[in-house]
Amino acid sequence: MRIAILGTGPVGIALGNAFIAAGHDVVYGSRSPEKDGRPAPVTTTAIAADSADLILTALPGAAAISTLEAVGDDVLAGKIVLDVSNAVTPEGALAYPNDSVGRLMQERFPDAKVVKSLSTMYHGVMTDPTALGATTVYVSGNDDDAKNVVKSLLSDLGWPEASQFDLGGIETAVGPEHYIPLFFMTLQAVGAPVFNINVVR
Amino acid sequence: MRIAILGTGPVGIALGNAFIAAGHDVVYGSRSPEKDGRPAPVTTTAIAADSADLILTALPGAAAISTLEAVGDDVLAGKIVLDVSNAVTPEGALAYPNDSVGRLMQERFPDAKVVKSLSTMYHGVMTDPTALGATTVYVSGNDDDAKNVVKSLLSDLGWPEASQFDLGGIETAVGPEHYIPLFFMTLQAVGAPVFNINVVR
Repeated sequence: MRIAILGTGPVGIALGNAFIAAGHDVVYGSRSPEKDGRPAPVTTTAIAADSADLILTALPGAAAISTLEAVGDDVLAGKIVLDVSNAVTPEGALAYPNDSVGRLMQERFPDAKVVKSLSTMYHGVMTDPTALGATTVYVSGNDDDAKNVVKSLLSDLGWPEASQFDLGGIETAVGPEHYIPLFFMTLQAVGAPVFNINVVR
Repeated sequence: MRIAILGTGPVGIALGNAFIAAGHDVVYGSRSPEKDGRPAPVTTTAIAADSADLILTALPGAAAISTLEAVGDDVLAGKIVLDVSNAVTPEGALAYPNDSVGRLMQERFPDAKVVKSLSTMYHGVMTDPTALGATTVYVSGNDDDAKNVVKSLLSDLGWPEASQFDLGGIETAVGPEHYIPLFFMTLQAVGAPVFNINVVR
């Protein structure tokens, strides 16, 4: 499928490379499309989003909704938006305490199909999950068909079905997003980003 | 050792039974000491705390600090306080977003040795952790000796050393406490409370 990745930081580049390796057609949307070093064509966010079946927001979470507003409601209508972002302040605190950028994005763009996933780990784990053994990737979203498309993309990244934990509707994105302080604390204690959590039951 | 458990709800009862089984001397502190059905003597919170080496706050997190204020600064001075609580509103939201009851408790009682642990799972998992296989219990606190006492108690509950994840100082309690929305979301998705997360690295 054709995937527009909005954002050309380390997360967007890592996911783009992995999707290209899995046979997908990737285009980047960026406010600075002229920069080099991206693994796929780069254009404006609006043109990239308009051309794609799925739009992935690999942006700072606090900037994700305003970036989509610049893309436009009409471009987003009916499209799947996979939000992998976390909204934190420059100090690392939650920018939307007791809420989530995922839920706010769905509220702001009711005609898009927002799915939250992949926001709970380092990008090197997103694209090489089984190097750690079995761990968990959460999925939240209101539209089951859109979640199934995202789950198929997670499989393409190497996440076994048994590792894909469907939390429910987009209101459950508050859980993974509020995990981010624990991610940061664990990162400091471990001293390296290659870790993840596994739900054991 | 002598452990005063403040609170006679399901968490306090489960932990009291497990500490008694491990050979510890348990006393409960309660605002309603006359009620029956507790596995150890029940007295007032102040008398229980004064008699013990370690004070465990098995209370609603939003009530933990005010309960300790009623106990008194002089009783708490020099004592280990093991806080297992989560501070949530009646709607289940974080009562202290971007902060933690653990850190606030240490700030309010600078002469006590506050350790945060066991706040991230159902009480049936706190006291029978290996039934799930290897999973993680977090520990946060400023005083290493106090953390070592708590780690020994965790071992008494059945937590192997390898499962005890030391996050660092009490400021890291914000991580486990902000995990609680994800705990609730997972609980709803699983439909049963017997689960936990394991840090895999």
